[in-house]
This record gives sequence, structure tokens and C-alpha cells, in this order.
Amino acid sequence: MQIAIVLFDRFTALDAVGPYEILSRIPGAETVFVAERAGPVRNDNAGSLALTADRTLGEVRRPDIVVVPGGPGQTAQMENETLLDWLRAVDAHTSWTASVCTGSLLLAAAGLLEGRRAASHWLALEYLESLGARPTGERVVIDGKYVTGAGVSSGVDLGLALVGEVAGERRAQAVQLAVEHDPRPPYDAGSPATAPADLVEELRSRSRFTPR
Amino acid sequence: MQIAIVLFDRFTALDAVGPYEILSRIPGAETVFVAERAGPVRNDNAGSLALTADRTLGEVRRPDIVVVPGGPGQTAQMENETLLDWLRAVDAHTSWTASVCTGSLLLAAAGLLEGRRAASHWLALEYLESLGARPTGERVVIDGKYVTGAGVSSGVDLGLALVGEVAGERRAQAVQLAVEHDPRPPYDAGSPATAPADLVEELRSRSRFTPR
Repeated sequence: MQIAIVLFDRFTALDAVGPYEILSRIPGAETVFVAERAGPVRNDNAGSLALTADRTLGEVRRPDIVVVPGGPGQTAQMENETLLDWLRAVDAHTSWTASVCTGSLLLAAAGLLEGRRAASHWLALEYLESLGARPTGERVVIDGKYVTGAGVSSGVDLGLALVGEVAGERRAQAVQLAVEHDPRPPYDAGSPATAPADLVEELRSRSRFTPR
Repeated sequence: MQIAIVLFDRFTALDAVGPYEILSRIPGAETVFVAERAGPVRNDNAGSLALTADRTLGEVRRPDIVVVPGGPGQTAQMENETLLDWLRAVDAHTSWTASVCTGSLLLAAAGLLEGRRAASHWLALEYLESLGARPTGERVVIDGKYVTGAGVSSGVDLGLALVGEVAGERRAQAVQLAVEHDPRPPYDAGSPATAPADLVEELRSRSRFTPR
């Protein structure tokens, strides 16, 4: 089983590494980071983090699972026909096509989420709908072979749900225990439903997806 | 404010990237990945992930915050006097010294957790005690300026607790909302207290910290 995790300039690191850390623990899985060009790919925070793409898109043609992260760089990638073509081509053969955060906007831009229930970062749900998907407020959405997660940190929950589908509940539980995924957020502000209302408005006003 | 995140061969990726994703969002913070040698550093899972160390240890002498991840490579690093000396030297000036997972074993090996309450991966708590710390079963432990987290996935909770200390509750809540840290694990197996007992025993029997 081959799992391909896509990288692009200004991706959000945890979007990619969260599901990586979980999915790469499936016994027998080969996990590869792929990008248009091989080599270090810088993230969205002043490029202070670089993950290495060990393979080019052209070198990975039949992954069983593909995972697309989000991040500010996603806006530019929505016009990158090379990436969108690759997503369509590999999706024709995947067992599972997944995204975290605004990665679902890329899947939608490639035409893969038409009419499907899907998740995204809470600030991007309306935009996702405008691309033909049916956004939900859920953390992880599975619709057919399409598995999409909410903002940034959802990739760990998504990864575990996917391990459950691919390798069974017991294996998913073993991975959960190994990575001690027993979250205890010190604040209760992780969703617009629970965060202080003025903070929700502040983030909305700065969002690249919402008209000001 | 400078935040240094340490890398070493066979580190666990999420141990480093979880707190990175949170702490790097502190306004004005400069976050740097450091290692003995600059360049790509490979992780514990067949080296399928490489994060770039942009600075050598020698180039980072006065970080305000240092974060040490864990992973199987930690065993070898406990004998790496260059790293332990560096940890002691920077700790003399840090505002906060932090670890995720078995990174606390490295802090303890450097003599920094003597008599202090501390966290670690649940499989490493007894070993941590043998190194002079006072392990707890908590997810994030703050004892003075020492902030230690439980296994792998604790780094997000730890990061948010640390943002709260450094930049205040409102900023921590803003980061939590931005990364949508509203966890919904699909299984309830994230700690030895809740996971199936036979799974806990299976992981114990394979642990590098527990006599077989």
C-alpha cells in the first residue's frame, strides 16, 4: 500500500504531518511526500519549516491513498493545472482520496467533490459549497472513498478514522494508544460554536475566504 | 522571541510539528529548527519524512523557548554529550524549556528535571522516574519553566498551554480557533486507562523501556 501526501509552497505543516504520523503506522504502508519538484518545500509561516518532497508528482502514479493538506498556498494551487490534473489522474485509481483543512478546496477544484458531503476549515465552508461540494460542520466526513477533515488539527482524527477503515478498529486503537491521542485542550475555543464570539468575528474579518 | 525546536535522527515527526504549528503563531516569534548538523533530518518511520534543520546547535545560543521532541532516536541522543551540553547551556537562559513525548528523557538526561514533576509517553514514565524526575500521568505538566507533554500527539495541547503562558489566554484561544483544535477521536483508546487492556499489554511487551 502506497500513501502519497502532497506538498506545495506555503502549505500548513500540521495539515500534512498529522495524518502522516497516523497513516504511516499502517503495517506495510509506504508513505511518500510528493510535490511538483522534489526537494524541500517551505510552509506558510515565513517558510520557517521545510519538509522534503522525496518524489515528484510524475514519479507517483498509482498511490492507494492520497492526502492533500491545506494552507494559504492552496489559493495559488487552485490554478495549478499540473497539480489538478495529477489529482484527477491518481483519484481514478485510489482506494481513498483525503484532505485536511483547505485541502478539500483543491479536491473540489479538481472536480472530485461534486455533490459530495465534505469538511474543510470552518472559515472555508461557504467557499467549499461554491465549488460544488456539500459542506458539513463535522470534523471528519467520509463520503464514499472521499475523506475530508476540518481545520489544521483534524488530521490526527482523520488519520485514525482512515486507519479504522483500511486496517480495522483494533489497529486504529493501537495507533491511537501509541501516539497517546487523548486530547486535553487547555481552552475550549477550538470551534466557532465554543470560542468567544468576538474572536470568531475577528478571525472572520481577516479570512481570505470571507468578503470583508 | 526565538523558539528553537531540536531535531535528531529518528525523531517522531508529530512530536516536533505539533508544538511548532502552535508556537510559531505567537506574534513576533521566530521559530527555528536546529540540529547538530544543518540540513534534512530523517524521522523514525523508515526515514520517510525529512524536516530541514535550518541552523546548527552552535548557531542558536540564546533561544527564549526550546522544545525537544522524542522518538526512537532519543535513546542514542541520551549519550550525545554535544546535545546534552547544548541543552544545559541554552536552558541557563531560556524562559521556557519544553519537551514532547520521550523528549523529557533527554531533558532528564541533561539533568534538567531533577526532582521536578514531568510528563512523558505513558510507556516511559517509569524510566523517566529512574532519571530523577517525578512523572505524572498528566497530559501537560508545567513545573516552573519546564513544560513537558505526554506521548506524540500532546504537543498541540502543550503548545496551546505555553501560548497561554507566554502571550495570554486570548491569544491561545485565537490560535486554538485558527487551527480548529476541537478534537473528536473516533475511538476511545488514547490512554492506557481507556484502551482495551490486551492492547495496553501488547504495546508494553514491545516497548523499548519495559523489561520483557
